[in-house]
Amino acid sequence: MRIYLAGPEVFLPDPLAVGAAKKAICVRYGLTGVFPLDTPALMPSGPPDWRRIHAANEMHIQSCDALVANLTPFRGTAADSGTVFELGYMRGLGRPVFGYTHAPADYRARVADARRLGEIWRDGEGLEVEDFGLAENLMLEGAIAASGGVLLRGQAPGGWTDLALFERCVAEVSRRILPQPNSGSRLSPSS
Amino acid sequence: MRIYLAGPEVFLPDPLAVGAAKKAICVRYGLTGVFPLDTPALMPSGPPDWRRIHAANEMHIQSCDALVANLTPFRGTAADSGTVFELGYMRGLGRPVFGYTHAPADYRARVADARRLGEIWRDGEGLEVEDFGLAENLMLEGAIAASGGVLLRGQAPGGWTDLALFERCVAEVSRRILPQPNSGSRLSPSS
Repeated sequence: MRIYLAGPEVFLPDPLAVGAAKKAICVRYGLTGVFPLDTPALMPSGPPDWRRIHAANEMHIQSCDALVANLTPFRGTAADSGTVFELGYMRGLGRPVFGYTHAPADYRARVADARRLGEIWRDGEGLEVEDFGLAENLMLEGAIAASGGVLLRGQAPGGWTDLALFERCVAEVSRRILPQPNSGSRLSPSS
Repeated sequence: MRIYLAGPEVFLPDPLAVGAAKKAICVRYGLTGVFPLDTPALMPSGPPDWRRIHAANEMHIQSCDALVANLTPFRGTAADSGTVFELGYMRGLGRPVFGYTHAPADYRARVADARRLGEIWRDGEGLEVEDFGLAENLMLEGAIAASGGVLLRGQAPGGWTDLALFERCVAEVSRRILPQPNSGSRLSPSS
């Protein structure tokens, strides 16, 4: 099974290193990780860089059976918009989506200027702040749940390259989408 | 043609008012606007609120021919994550996606701590800042362009309820996806 590895790690100084580390974890769980910066089988040619990168990533997602997104807040309260787009895209394809975030607090608690006005929480601009006990906007959480996935929360003392929570998420992917043998570990089918 | 009206206006104190105003504009361009808070033909029952809202919105998007997203930055550098998810979802369905933003500056210029290091712009954390002259992450812009849509930028002196740029975007939707008569206005087919 091929798993698309969505997340803002593509912006790290050494993105290929974290991509390789993520793929190595996938292998240990019987999965093939596909990193956004991988070269697709049929690389689109012609248009400017950003269009080619976009086209390659959509091809990658189409080629995968499920998606694991790093939904850690990125330059604001919510996850990286490119990552969120990819989560939505895979859900539009009808395939399972999973997520994890290194910000364990509820979304509402992460909006610094949220205040309760009657029944509703609102930010300093008067805009409602979702208060469902979720980590992210309900569309992301709803899609993950409806697709059979999970959104895991945890600390990451090592920052963006800390892959402990990612590994827990990959374990969930493996458990939920890989064909299960009658019993025992799916990682040792011959045992 | 049915157009899904994605955006953080659902969080305004009076979301139904702006929803009604957006739908009225759609009508003038020969389109039917579908607002996230509309009740879908078959409202899902049972699970807790956030799951029902998510399910209803996915149903709405499935029922639409195109999507117009308000991609104005929301609680950070990028667009509202729920809106971005919906944009990705519609793109995953293979249908046209359009956007507009009330922040006219390039994405890179909106990252306050972006600094140029060699060929690459990086933020204070060392993460790369996209510098393609785009308003949003390349996945969003790439999807909009590849689907035949446009992403419009403009000022909004009236804030979240200022619909001038939204109307320009709806005019683009109408021009690009409605069947065109031989000549003249598509809004007066009998003339």
